[in-house]
Amino acid sequence: MKGSLFEFNMLFDFCCQVFEAKGLSAENAALASTVLLDADLKGIDSHGLARLGGYMRLSDKNRLNLKANFNIVHETPTTATVDADSGLGLLAAPFAMDLAIKKAEIYGCGFVCVNNSNHFGIAGYHSELAVQKNMIGFASTNASPLVAPTYSNERLLGTNPMAFSFPVKNRFPITADFATTTAANGKLEILQRKNEMAPSGWIQNKDGTPTHDPNTLSAGGSLLPLGSDAEHGSHKGFCLGAVVDLFSGVLSGANFGPWVPPFVSFLEPKQNLVGKGIGHFVGAWRVDAFGDLDSYYKNIAIWINTFKSAKTIDANKQVIIPGEPEHETKKIRLLQGIPLVPKVIDDLKILANQLKIKHPF
Amino acid sequence: MKGSLFEFNMLFDFCCQVFEAKGLSAENAALASTVLLDADLKGIDSHGLARLGGYMRLSDKNRLNLKANFNIVHETPTTATVDADSGLGLLAAPFAMDLAIKKAEIYGCGFVCVNNSNHFGIAGYHSELAVQKNMIGFASTNASPLVAPTYSNERLLGTNPMAFSFPVKNRFPITADFATTTAANGKLEILQRKNEMAPSGWIQNKDGTPTHDPNTLSAGGSLLPLGSDAEHGSHKGFCLGAVVDLFSGVLSGANFGPWVPPFVSFLEPKQNLVGKGIGHFVGAWRVDAFGDLDSYYKNIAIWINTFKSAKTIDANKQVIIPGEPEHETKKIRLLQGIPLVPKVIDDLKILANQLKIKHPF
Repeated sequence: MKGSLFEFNMLFDFCCQVFEAKGLSAENAALASTVLLDADLKGIDSHGLARLGGYMRLSDKNRLNLKANFNIVHETPTTATVDADSGLGLLAAPFAMDLAIKKAEIYGCGFVCVNNSNHFGIAGYHSELAVQKNMIGFASTNASPLVAPTYSNERLLGTNPMAFSFPVKNRFPITADFATTTAANGKLEILQRKNEMAPSGWIQNKDGTPTHDPNTLSAGGSLLPLGSDAEHGSHKGFCLGAVVDLFSGVLSGANFGPWVPPFVSFLEPKQNLVGKGIGHFVGAWRVDAFGDLDSYYKNIAIWINTFKSAKTIDANKQVIIPGEPEHETKKIRLLQGIPLVPKVIDDLKILANQLKIKHPF
Repeated sequence: MKGSLFEFNMLFDFCCQVFEAKGLSAENAALASTVLLDADLKGIDSHGLARLGGYMRLSDKNRLNLKANFNIVHETPTTATVDADSGLGLLAAPFAMDLAIKKAEIYGCGFVCVNNSNHFGIAGYHSELAVQKNMIGFASTNASPLVAPTYSNERLLGTNPMAFSFPVKNRFPITADFATTTAANGKLEILQRKNEMAPSGWIQNKDGTPTHDPNTLSAGGSLLPLGSDAEHGSHKGFCLGAVVDLFSGVLSGANFGPWVPPFVSFLEPKQNLVGKGIGHFVGAWRVDAFGDLDSYYKNIAIWINTFKSAKTIDANKQVIIPGEPEHETKKIRLLQGIPLVPKVIDDLKILANQLKIKHPF
C-alpha cells in the first residue's frame, strides 16, 4: 500500500498538462497544480493528486467551471466578498488570500469571503501565503455534509477545516491546519483501503450508534465533531465546525449546512439551494501592525523551543509543533519523491488517456 | 450544593461596592461587575462572583492594579496593542473590544491585542459586544498553564478559551465560547466540591498517566487538550490552545506558555518572565462589510432553524445551538435569581467584612 515514488517535477508537469488540456491558462494551471501538490508534498495524500480526477469529473458535469472569472462583489478597505463563478477553490482561495494580504499591507489586516466556489485543497497552503509577507494567515472552508452535530444522527456539517499560519524566522511557519472533526475523512478513506477498523469515537452509523466500520459513511453514517461525544467536548468540535460554516457559508452567500454541494460527481447537489457553491473565509494580519517584528520573531522562537523541549511521557515521542510533520515530510518528498497508491495511479492514467496526455506512470 | 438564590440587582450592587471600596470609579466598578456577573447569569458559575475574592487577593499582593490606565502602545487603522497596566481583564477586554469595533465601523474589521492584563471573565461577554453593532465578535485569552500538549506531561498552556459571536435578528446571538481543553477547569472544580470522579480523557496525573481523580491538578497533574488523546485528535485541541497563546501572548507582548502568571494569589509568577502579565486577542468584523445585512440575517435564521430541527438520537435531546444554554439560563436567572454555593457566600462575606461593606447574604 505504500505506493511507488514519483518525482515532484514530473507530477507537477503532468498536473499542469491536465489543467491546460481542460482549458486553464498556463499560469492558472501552474497555480492549481502547486496548491494541489502541496498536499501530496506535505503527506496529506487525500487532498492532492488523488482528487485531480474528481475535479475533472465535476467539470464534465458542468458543476465546476474551469474558465471561471472571479468577481469582487462587495468590498470595504479591509474586507471583500468574491464570487468564484463556480471555479476551482484551488484558484479562488489564493485570489482571496492575495486580496486579504493587499488590504492588510495597507490597513493592518484584511479578510475575504468567497462564495460560488469548489474544494480548495488544503487550508494550510492558503494560510501560509501570508507568512511570506510577515503576516499571520487564516483560511477555512465549508464542505459537503458528513458530520452530525452532538446528539444528532443527521449529517449537517462538513469536516470544515481551519488553518492558522504564524511566520517564524529562518524556519517554516507554525501552521495549525485541521478538520474540526475527531478524524479527517482522509484518515477514514485510508482505513477503508486497508480494510481496517476505525477507533471508537470517530464515526457513528445511520441511527447514531457508535461504530468502528469505516464504510459506515457510505451507508448514511456520520463523522463525529472533535471531542467525539458530549462528555469529551464534542459540542466544542461542533462549535468550531459551525463557526467555519457561518463565516464560509452564511456570511459569504455560499451554501451552508446540509446544502453544501458534494465534491464527488456521482452525488447530486440538493434542490432549492440556500446559496452559491461552497464557501471559504480567509484573512491576514500584519505582525508589525501589533508591535515590533523582531520581538515577535524572538518570542515565537522561544515558544517553539519551549514546546519542543518539553518533557514527554514516552521518551520516544516529542511534542509536535503544529505544521512540523507536514513540513518535514515536504522536505523528504521533494528529495525522495511522492508516493502514489495504485488506485490513484490508475485514476490518473485514465485521465491522461481521456485527455490524450503522455503520462509518467 | 444547589445553593441559595440571590437577586441579580442585589449581587450587582454588592459587587460594585466591593470594586468601589478598592478604588475603582463608579463607572469602572459597574462595568467590571457587569462582566463578572454575566458569567453567573449564564450559568458559568466558576467565572463569576466565585472569583471576586481572587481578584481582590491578587490586588492585595500588588499583582493586580485596580487603578490601571490602559495605553495604546501600537496602532494601525485596523489594529492596536493595548498595555493594560496590570489592570483588570474585566475592564481591559471591553476597552480593547470597543477599539476593535470602532476600527471595524470605519474600515470593515478591527483587531486588538492586550498585554499586561489579568483574567477577563468569560470570553463570550466580550465577543458579544460586537453583535449589538451588527458585527461578528471574537475574543480569546491565554491563561496560566494547566494543560499538557499531546504526548507531554508538562503543563505548558492554559485552558485558553476562544469565543465567536454572530448577531441574529430578534434573538440572542450565536456564541461559541469554549476552553480549548476537553473539559474546562470550572467543571473539574465542581467535581472536587462534590467529591466525584472525572470521566476518562479529561485529566492525567503528574507522570502523564490517565486518571479520574479531579484533585490531580493540585498534585501536578494536567488537563488534556480537546480530543483527550492523539487517537481522538488532541493534537487539534493543542493546536487551538497554541493559536490562542500565539495571538494573546507572543503577538501581544504578554507572557505565553508556561510563563503566564497564575490567577490564584497563593502561587507565585515564574522568574524571568518573557512578557507582561497575561494577554488577550479580540476583534470584530462588520457583517455588512461582506454583503447585504438582511440576506445575512435571513440565512442565519435558516441555519439556526435547520440545526434546531435536526433529527436526534435520543428523542429527549435537541441539537444545541452554540450559546443557547447560556442565554436561556440568563433569562431564568434574571427572573428567579442567581444560585451561590455556601463556599462562595462565605468568601464574599469575608470580603464584605474586610472592606466594611453591608452584605446581602
